[in-house]
Order: sequence, then C-alpha cells, then structure tokens
Amino acid sequence: MSITERELLAMIERIFPQRADGLELGIGDDCAAIRPSPGHETLITVDTLIEGTHFSRKYTTPRDLARKSMAVSLSDIAAMGGAPRFALLSLNFTRTVDRRWIGAYLKEFRSAAERFGCVVAGGNVALAPRDLSVTVTAVGEVKRGRRVDRSGARPGDAVYVTGTPGDSALGFDLLRANRPRYRQWERRLMARHTRPEPRVAWGRALANKKIPSAMIDISDGVAIDLRRMLAASGVSARIGLFNFPLSKEAARIVETKGEAVWRRILSGGEDYELLFTVPPGRVKKLERLIAEGSVVAARIGQTMEGRGSLTVADRSGNVLALEHEGFLHGSE
Amino acid sequence: MSITERELLAMIERIFPQRADGLELGIGDDCAAIRPSPGHETLITVDTLIEGTHFSRKYTTPRDLARKSMAVSLSDIAAMGGAPRFALLSLNFTRTVDRRWIGAYLKEFRSAAERFGCVVAGGNVALAPRDLSVTVTAVGEVKRGRRVDRSGARPGDAVYVTGTPGDSALGFDLLRANRPRYRQWERRLMARHTRPEPRVAWGRALANKKIPSAMIDISDGVAIDLRRMLAASGVSARIGLFNFPLSKEAARIVETKGEAVWRRILSGGEDYELLFTVPPGRVKKLERLIAEGSVVAARIGQTMEGRGSLTVADRSGNVLALEHEGFLHGSE
Repeated sequence: MSITERELLAMIERIFPQRADGLELGIGDDCAAIRPSPGHETLITVDTLIEGTHFSRKYTTPRDLARKSMAVSLSDIAAMGGAPRFALLSLNFTRTVDRRWIGAYLKEFRSAAERFGCVVAGGNVALAPRDLSVTVTAVGEVKRGRRVDRSGARPGDAVYVTGTPGDSALGFDLLRANRPRYRQWERRLMARHTRPEPRVAWGRALANKKIPSAMIDISDGVAIDLRRMLAASGVSARIGLFNFPLSKEAARIVETKGEAVWRRILSGGEDYELLFTVPPGRVKKLERLIAEGSVVAARIGQTMEGRGSLTVADRSGNVLALEHEGFLHGSE
Repeated sequence: MSITERELLAMIERIFPQRADGLELGIGDDCAAIRPSPGHETLITVDTLIEGTHFSRKYTTPRDLARKSMAVSLSDIAAMGGAPRFALLSLNFTRTVDRRWIGAYLKEFRSAAERFGCVVAGGNVALAPRDLSVTVTAVGEVKRGRRVDRSGARPGDAVYVTGTPGDSALGFDLLRANRPRYRQWERRLMARHTRPEPRVAWGRALANKKIPSAMIDISDGVAIDLRRMLAASGVSARIGLFNFPLSKEAARIVETKGEAVWRRILSGGEDYELLFTVPPGRVKKLERLIAEGSVVAARIGQTMEGRGSLTVADRSGNVLALEHEGFLHGSE
C-alpha cells in the first residue's frame, strides 16, 4: 500500500491546526468541540464528491479537488448568508493515490479553509476498495434573524444571480474534449469548472443588509435551482436572456455555436453562484451594493403568483423550452 | 437505474421529520440550521462505512447498516459524555441497490436516530460508480465543564471498560465462516458485530457525575484504543485479564480455543464500548453507579507514570505480547 496509517496521521497532525477561536477541541479526539457564538444559529451541511460521478483525476489535480470539495460545502453556507467556521473531512482514498497526492490534497484543503476563515476541526480517513471520494461537512453560523432560506420568495420579487453562470458547464465541455492545446480564453472557462469560488462574502453582505427574500446556490444549473427555490416558496417566475450576465468567454461561444448553447448555460450546473430574490422595496439598496462593488450580481427576472413554474424568454422574447427533470449527478 | 432522483427525494421527505426541538431548519434547504443550547458546547464527529472495507452486504442487511452507521458516530459523542442532537447522512449508493434497499436503510436510520434523541437534519445522496458507502456526521452537545477528553488520564487512575469487549470480533469471525447453521449463543455474538449499541446513556451518566478523567470509545480494540488514550494523556498502564469482563459466549470460545483468543478479544475492534480512567477519589462514586445498574463497567487495570506504553498480564500473570501498530480499516 501507498501510505501507512502512522504516516497519514502524522501528516494530518502536521498540516491541521489544533487551536482556533471558538474551537474547544480540534483533531485528535473522538469529536471536535466547538463553542457557538451567542446570538447565532449554527448552519451545517454535507457534500460528497466521488470520482467517476463528480470528477475525474484526468482533469482534476489533488489541489483542485481540495478547493472544489471545500467550495461545494461552503457555497451552501454562503447561500444561507452564513459565515463558515469549521470543516470536517472524510477522505476515502484508494490504493491508486500515493502520499504525495494525499499530502497535496490535505495542504490545499487547509489553505482553502483558511481563505474563508474556516478551521479544519476533524474528520476521518479510510481506504476504499475502488472509488476515491471526499465528504466535507461544513459548519457555519449566522446571526439570529439574518438567515436566508430558499422558501421566502413572494410574487413580485426581482430575481438576481451573482457572477456569470454557465461558465463552469462550458469549461467542463472544453475539458472533456481533452484537446492537446487550449487558448487562453478557453483556459479561463476551464478554471471556472475546476476552481469554483464559493460566494461567501457576497452571501454575507446580502444577508447582513437583509436584502434577499430567498436564496439558493447554483449547483445543478440556474434552471433547476431556480425551480427548486420557486417550488419551496410557492411562486412562479419569468426570466429573460436578454440581460443575462454572460462572461465574454461564454458570449463568444454563444456567438459561434448559436442559441442552443443557452440550454447548456442554464442547465449545466456547478456554477456555485448565488441565485436570490429581492422584494421591490429593497432593490435600490441592492443596486447600491452592486454599484459600490460589494456584490457582483445582475437582475435576470421576476417572480409572480404561481406554483413553481419557470418561463424563460430567449433574447428575441420567445419562450425557450428546457428539460424539467431534476438532476442527480451520475443518475441520468 | 434502480431509483430516480424524484423518487429518492420523495422518499427522503416522507421518512424524515421536518420539525424538532432545536432544529430551526431541517432537510430541504442548502443547510440545516440548529439552535445550540445555552451553556453547552457543540460536539461534532464524522465517520464513514464503505462496502468492502467496513462491511459486506453478504452479512449486513440495510437495516443493520443503518443502525451501525448511526452507532459508530453516536459512539464518538458518547465517548465525550455528550448527548446526541442531530445527524446528517451522506449516502453514496450504487446501481446494485434498489429502492427497497434504500427505503429500508433510510427508515431504520431514522429509527436509530430517534432511539437516541437525535434528529436527522440533512444530508446528501449521490450515485457512486462502484463502492457503496455511508458517511454520518453526528452533532451532539455537552454542558460546559462536563466534556471528557481522551487526554485527561493521570498516573494512578483506575482503568475501566463498559460491557463485554471482544464479542464483536468473535462474532465477525463466526459471520465470516459463513456456515449454513449457527447455534443460539453464536448468533448472539454475531449480533454484537452487526448491531453494536453506542453507550450514549452510560457516557452521559459518567460525564454528568464527573467520574472519568479520560474516555474513548473502542472502535479498533481495547489494546489500540487504550494506547491512544495513554499516548494522548502521557501515562502508561497495566491491565490484567484475570478480571476482564468476558461475555459468557466469549468465555466459552476462550475455553475451547485457548488463550490465543485473547489477542483477538483485545485487538479485534468494533466493540463501541467505552474505555475510561477514574481518579482514585472517584472510584467509590463509580462503584455505586455500577451497583445501582446505571452503568455496566468493570475495572481492568491501572495507569502509572510513563510515556504511553501498555502492559497486559494474562490470567496467569504473565505478560502478553500484542501487535503494536495502529489500525486503518482495509489498509493492513
């Protein structure tokens, strides 16, 4: 085998900090013990990335996987308006990775946590027979009364999205093509897939200012995640592609390949941007935040009375038909 | 494929409760939101069971796996003296399990949680290419000042263990023999492997009375986990097998197969009993708890000055040699 338990535990002890604010007891005991901040709720979420379902080592370095596994869980904290505090890692490695791979993964996992003010407080390592996988439990907190659920949208709210969704899916298509060479602009799209950025600061800024009525992160595509938010809130929505915030790289692909690319942009997933609704009375406050650069977001539509349906108008104003079924990675 | 995402999500919604004390927001949003109890620390732990490493479906029904996956994580909460509050499940299923299997697993997972006052607050489902695995994050709490770490043992403490360790390993050997028929007493041992009981009530009783100086749960065998506790505490210990609490089933195997069975009993693992040390001044209080039946535990040895070494005296008083290396499931 590639690494002994002793080496692995020594590596873990070396890499992860034992002391941090609010951490009563870190890695090395049966549990981590954390001290919740007074006046806050604790947020907790868990996500798993499995090789062959969510990533391939062909396109994903251990550092990319570390960042992405952290990003996926922290994005859920961001979507509630929370601040990340602690992360626990369950690493199921296989005999096909060596100590260098594991070391690179763990070091970058720590760095990724630190960048978001998050401390690695515990975890678990095991040898899996075949599938390499990582499960990250993220713990965050949000001031009482500031939490943003996905169920709070009301008819007449504006629909906003952060960043430029769709880049991740288009980048993934480029990766999958596995060409010997890529152009600079193509690499930028690919990096959007391999190194997504959880929108922690934007989510907190929005929640602290009490701007969104509902919020969700985009893991399975704007269309599916917006439908989830609409269903949870009991409203419908119409979005238009005329003002949709495309990156210039994505716009270039739409120009070349035509309008069909929009389906991929709206349904591709793994953007980890935030999708949120804003009551009319708070739109001005949001637009100020956007103008000063505290949040990067664009208005894409409007909610209305209804039971969770989504209408998408293309850039000519015609209704665009989209697949309706939910998406479970690897199950289609 | 065996189950669609829609069916799976409907099943999850049907099975898991949305409301519980301290649960601000349950399954169905980006995160669960929980309200910590004032004056308490939050305990958190994560454990994974992987088919082929930790279990085989040949010997493990979905109900057994549900109970065991819950038990393994709750045992860590018990070992800190905590009360379980919430659990999050990451289920990586494969195409080799059908909706009946998943339904049976999820229902028993809920029941197992409820038995320990624990609420399933969130999770994640994904389709894995090959390895079926479950990762359970358990969240508990303990009153400030009552938490029991593994590092608190001092020279001169008594060493105690709950229940009858070794049964699980002996039961596993019987299971693995895969015989067409078993006797009643053999089935009892096998059940100790397939349906371990986390010692939540005992752990809490001990911590509430401030009895242990250190505590750990036995996942990898008395010998290895005791060494871990000794190393964390910076003491050595001597234990004797003369008064070791054997079940009558295990005693029967020792009688038949001889003293070599002791190595298996001490190093087999997966007992999920509690191992703890007690300062001399608190032994009387503990013996009262044991006498009244609030805790089932037996004294097996004594700590002393030292640097983490463990001496085991067999029933004739001779030193028993044991393997020293740590144990990572599946990595030997």
